[in-house]
Amino acid sequence: MTYLYETTAINEDGVNGESFIKDGERVTVSTPLSDEPGTNPEQLIGLAMSTCFNATVQTILKADGLTPKTRTETAVKMFKEPSGVGYYFDLDVQLAIEGLADEKVANYLELTKARCPIAKLTSSSDTVSFRTVKF
Amino acid sequence: MTYLYETTAINEDGVNGESFIKDGERVTVSTPLSDEPGTNPEQLIGLAMSTCFNATVQTILKADGLTPKTRTETAVKMFKEPSGVGYYFDLDVQLAIEGLADEKVANYLELTKARCPIAKLTSSSDTVSFRTVKF
Repeated sequence: MTYLYETTAINEDGVNGESFIKDGERVTVSTPLSDEPGTNPEQLIGLAMSTCFNATVQTILKADGLTPKTRTETAVKMFKEPSGVGYYFDLDVQLAIEGLADEKVANYLELTKARCPIAKLTSSSDTVSFRTVKF
Repeated sequence: MTYLYETTAINEDGVNGESFIKDGERVTVSTPLSDEPGTNPEQLIGLAMSTCFNATVQTILKADGLTPKTRTETAVKMFKEPSGVGYYFDLDVQLAIEGLADEKVANYLELTKARCPIAKLTSSSDTVSFRTVKF
C-alpha cells in the first residue's frame, strides 16, 4: 500500500550527543538523569503523544461541527524495572476539552484512543493510560 | 514506587502551532501533509525510538566490555487505515553495529528489543518491526 508521508530519525550517540532527522533537523539529547541541556526519549514520546492525541481529538470534534479549545498533557515517568535490570516509562495521558459535559469528554477520549496513531502504537501497553481532566 | 525522572509534554494547538514541555522547550509543529516548517508526531516518535534504542544497545554492549560504534535508524511511514477512517504509523527500526558478526548483531537486537523502554511501549504493535542492517 502507498504511504502518505515518510521520515527517518537517526541516532548514533545514545543519550549523549545528537539525534537527527534524515535531511532535516538535529536535536541535542542528554540523559534525563543529568542536568545537561538537551531533550531525551521521555520528552520525545510525550511530545509525540500529546501532539498526535490533541490533533486527533480536534479532527473528530470538527467532524461533529465542534471547535472547542482542547489540551492534551502527557506525564511521562521513568521507573526502574522491578527486576532491577533496565527501566520502563509510564505515560499518563490527560485530555481536557473546554465547555463540554464530562460524559461527552469521556466519549471523545474513547474515540480518540481508537483513532490516534501514537495511541494505537501503544495500545497494548499496561503502562500507558488515558483519562479526562477539567479544562 | 518512586520514579527516577518525570516530564510533562503539552499540546493545545493540534498539528498547527506548538507543543511544549512544562517549564521547558517549545517546538513548532505542522501537519506532515503540508510544507510548513515544524516537526510532527512521526518525527517525534522516530526520534524517541532511535535515541532510546541506540542508547540501550550501547549500555548492553558496554556491560559486555564492548564499545563499538552503533546506529539506529527508524523509518516512520504514515498510512491511511484500510477502513478509510484515520491513519496509522509503521515503524521500521534498523540497528547497525560496527565490526560485529551478523549473528552477534542479531543477538544484541533481541536483547535491546526486550530492554529499551520505547520498544517496550510498542511491543505488541504489529506495525513496529526491528531488523539489523550493515554498519
